[in-house]
Amino acid sequence: MKVSHIEHLGIAVKSLDEAIPYWENVLGLKCYKIEEVADQKVKTAFFKIGETKIELLEPTCPESKIAGFIEKRGIGIHHMALAVENIEEQLADAASKEIRLIDQTPRKGADGMTIAFLHPKSTQGILTELCENKNK
Amino acid sequence: MKVSHIEHLGIAVKSLDEAIPYWENVLGLKCYKIEEVADQKVKTAFFKIGETKIELLEPTCPESKIAGFIEKRGIGIHHMALAVENIEEQLADAASKEIRLIDQTPRKGADGMTIAFLHPKSTQGILTELCENKNK
Repeated sequence: MKVSHIEHLGIAVKSLDEAIPYWENVLGLKCYKIEEVADQKVKTAFFKIGETKIELLEPTCPESKIAGFIEKRGIGIHHMALAVENIEEQLADAASKEIRLIDQTPRKGADGMTIAFLHPKSTQGILTELCENKNK
Repeated sequence: MKVSHIEHLGIAVKSLDEAIPYWENVLGLKCYKIEEVADQKVKTAFFKIGETKIELLEPTCPESKIAGFIEKRGIGIHHMALAVENIEEQLADAASKEIRLIDQTPRKGADGMTIAFLHPKSTQGILTELCENKNK
């Protein structure tokens, strides 16, 4: 695979309203977008720190995977997203190296990105997302 | 606080020998340093991805905090380190905003950095390290 940088960190929070003040007032970052991703059952908030985004994830219902994550592990870092070019090729390369794919083909994610998740059992315990900006 | 970018992600692994091939052969990164940090009871391996480092952490004895983390939560992301200038000022600013400090004063960390940890109970569940390169 060829990855260029950490595109974002996905961070599970119980409430955007409670979490955003930490990132803004303590760390001095600016929330530039709030977006609901209905099919993932989350509401997201975005910040930029250097070349990496912080994506806060608030579950919108108890069936959200983020709600399950928080119940099991508490709030905190949920996944790491790596920026790639030609996500289809990278995904095929991952599969050829016996990485377990959660998404067999790329799909639309938040913030206009094309994304695919890799299973943490095959990525050193880190839920890993490949992320391509096809709108550039 | 003023933070410029994610300096590194600290990642708990059981064994560097088992983990390094994932980062090198699957993700295509290059391990540029292996360093033992005796007082933290870890052996570390470093990679660079964009402006951020990946710091793998292998416990060197069962009393290592990383060993405890792995036993409780499994391998995976252990902490997030934020790059700052003038770490003493940033730490004072954090304390003034009721952030709980693990390190009251900065100390020497791996890879030549001056570091201080903030307690995850006050940083949205994310064990957070401030990190300054005073050798620049």
